[in-house]
Amino acid sequence: MRLNETHDPSRKSWVESANAPDTDFPLQNLPLGVYTVGGDPARRIGVAIGDQVLDLAAACEQGLIALDDALARAVRAPQLNALMALGPVAGSRLRASVFELLRAGHPAQARARGCLRPLSALTLQLPAGIGDFTDFYTSIHHATRAARAMRPGAELAANFRHLPIAYHGRASSVVASGTDCTRPAGQLGPDPQGAAYLPTRALDFELEVGCFIGQGNPLGQPISLDRAEDHIFGLCLVNDWSARDIQRWEAQPLGPFLAKSFMTSISPWVVTLEALAPFRMAPQPRSADDPPIAAALASPAHDQAGAIGIALRASLSTPAMREHGRAAQPISAPDFAGQYWTLFQMVAHHASNGCNLRPGDLISSGTVSGPDIADSGCLLERTRNGAEPLRLASGEARGYLEDGDIVTLGGRCEKAGYAGIGFGTCEGRVVSRRR
Amino acid sequence: MRLNETHDPSRKSWVESANAPDTDFPLQNLPLGVYTVGGDPARRIGVAIGDQVLDLAAACEQGLIALDDALARAVRAPQLNALMALGPVAGSRLRASVFELLRAGHPAQARARGCLRPLSALTLQLPAGIGDFTDFYTSIHHATRAARAMRPGAELAANFRHLPIAYHGRASSVVASGTDCTRPAGQLGPDPQGAAYLPTRALDFELEVGCFIGQGNPLGQPISLDRAEDHIFGLCLVNDWSARDIQRWEAQPLGPFLAKSFMTSISPWVVTLEALAPFRMAPQPRSADDPPIAAALASPAHDQAGAIGIALRASLSTPAMREHGRAAQPISAPDFAGQYWTLFQMVAHHASNGCNLRPGDLISSGTVSGPDIADSGCLLERTRNGAEPLRLASGEARGYLEDGDIVTLGGRCEKAGYAGIGFGTCEGRVVSRRR
Repeated sequence: MRLNETHDPSRKSWVESANAPDTDFPLQNLPLGVYTVGGDPARRIGVAIGDQVLDLAAACEQGLIALDDALARAVRAPQLNALMALGPVAGSRLRASVFELLRAGHPAQARARGCLRPLSALTLQLPAGIGDFTDFYTSIHHATRAARAMRPGAELAANFRHLPIAYHGRASSVVASGTDCTRPAGQLGPDPQGAAYLPTRALDFELEVGCFIGQGNPLGQPISLDRAEDHIFGLCLVNDWSARDIQRWEAQPLGPFLAKSFMTSISPWVVTLEALAPFRMAPQPRSADDPPIAAALASPAHDQAGAIGIALRASLSTPAMREHGRAAQPISAPDFAGQYWTLFQMVAHHASNGCNLRPGDLISSGTVSGPDIADSGCLLERTRNGAEPLRLASGEARGYLEDGDIVTLGGRCEKAGYAGIGFGTCEGRVVSRRR
Repeated sequence: MRLNETHDPSRKSWVESANAPDTDFPLQNLPLGVYTVGGDPARRIGVAIGDQVLDLAAACEQGLIALDDALARAVRAPQLNALMALGPVAGSRLRASVFELLRAGHPAQARARGCLRPLSALTLQLPAGIGDFTDFYTSIHHATRAARAMRPGAELAANFRHLPIAYHGRASSVVASGTDCTRPAGQLGPDPQGAAYLPTRALDFELEVGCFIGQGNPLGQPISLDRAEDHIFGLCLVNDWSARDIQRWEAQPLGPFLAKSFMTSISPWVVTLEALAPFRMAPQPRSADDPPIAAALASPAHDQAGAIGIALRASLSTPAMREHGRAAQPISAPDFAGQYWTLFQMVAHHASNGCNLRPGDLISSGTVSGPDIADSGCLLERTRNGAEPLRLASGEARGYLEDGDIVTLGGRCEKAGYAGIGFGTCEGRVVSRRR
């Protein structure tokens, strides 16, 4: 988390749109992603800058950024895995090179302009091949309210404050923002007639923050808390779509399965841990009645800067809103810094049994919810499992999502004295089952 | 499940060892695997025949087997995924070609001998890149006894007889037979002093049968029960090593996580569904008090041949046994045909929500246990969570596995009028944590 020149808020870019105060992608962000153009299946790695994308391989080939062999190979790949595997020092060198190229006053600006493409002309793809997807459960507000909404009388799980709870998710159905979410069918509960597989009546979103693993660890070799940051490449937004009726019926005793595996959406830009350095902060203080924290999950450095402040937001657009020209309605705005467990604790706990993490693995926070129910990161909590539907300004109400609804997630880091940076969006529309 | 010439038990091979009555790999089996030789990292696809392995790419290059372009490319790959993706018709053509080459009397026998390598000289690797690993829970005997052993008074889960319960597993830590299992550390329970991460005291094995997905399905498009077999490439043995103390503490509410993800071993040879055709049989009849089965999980064809008869076995070798020259002791011998849910029902249920399965995905049965506690597929059941240790003929006792113990799984299909076939072994030794 050392700050360097790339965090200097006074530096501007020659890409004009990157200097707008509200852009998610100023010179200080430089998130990485993968895109295609038109019908061409070739995938290329890009860096978002304002409303443009810098083609990294092209910039490298034209000698605009000087990279060593390993980095030069990695930026020519069709996904970020090889770059992720190179570790934080290489990532930092790449960031410094791109920062230098894009800063106002760079002499090769005219040539570099030839390596830009307008963001609006590209199709953004999954940034990496995801070997494994792990979903945690680290908001105490979510865990408390969701448990009660799912099973009346349920309390916060006994283990919640001892370890970061998680389950293995499904990697194959992780998709990039913009992919439609087909309403899944499943067994919705016990049925004395022989259960039918029916379309879910309780389709939900989950507002989460994910991190991509950078360099991995060998099987059998844990990662200590203070080394965890060397293994995190960067962050994205995650919508872990969920079918609550399928979940309630299937998830005992082995956890959620088909209630989650039909689709998970992520924002396509990976904001590097280095770009997020100015927004690191102390984690939420533990309360007096919390159990002592495990020694392996605490350290002085982590006490100072284990959390990351990200103002998250979810909004909902219904077909009726769009028909009447209404903008999407904000429905939740929690801050990621309020999680009970941090991403670094998640990584350390994940590898504590020797489990090998690989470059490109996705680890997500689980639903991020604030202390106020209005900042719930899912409808299960917000509507108490549909019992208290959310009243929308359009006059509509939603217990759960309906066909045609669009959920959009966003996230932004702001701090006095620094350039604000953002994550772009993670968006998906619910569509009815085709068969 | 049509039988053809490749199932004819009267056909012999010119590879003498393949004609021994007790070989796992007669001419009628022809399982596929991936191997390396010595320190050479190059991975090659082979077919096991007796105590030899046929190098498929070499046989193809020398014109000994005639394959179309797609098959010829697939057998030259370093893993089976491309071959799996080609589907059952291509797989069947490959099987017929290899059968023809290896049958007694084939004129090119002398040249073909040059494509053989002794099995004992090879290192067997994971057969495929595993995109996702899913572990089911489909033995009613296991589910009943394990629930009671894990939590006194617990009953069979209410949903067990309605749907095949499963959870997402960890793909990164699936390894080939022969890899040592490092005893994992973890939080073993609530600890008022602040939980330490200690080596598990309840390390267990799980005797399972896995299947590799062949051709996949697109996201959003389910697979019907009667099409499920078109998506299964073949089967292997699985040892899903488990840490029961970690599991008991972490697994509520979201299921097992670190209790499983430290390692899963599989047998390296994939026995194709076509080789198993003679051993297909009617599934266990449902009992009178079972709920009606969901329409999507039943069909006339499945009623006839949804199960596969595989005589499974687990054996245990302790350091003291080996020191005294004792053979490993058989400790369990359930039959796979006794599972409450079949592999085909697992695949259909898995895709019922539109989840996309990909070639090379691994789907496992969960612990296979027989009705008798002596045929339990894990120690949790067999020793009632260590309370009634297993007495070994060596005079030792085991509540759970100790360092140096070797667990070996095997499986064999026998039926009057057919050549018996087997799976080889899935073996692993417990070693203490290095740090």
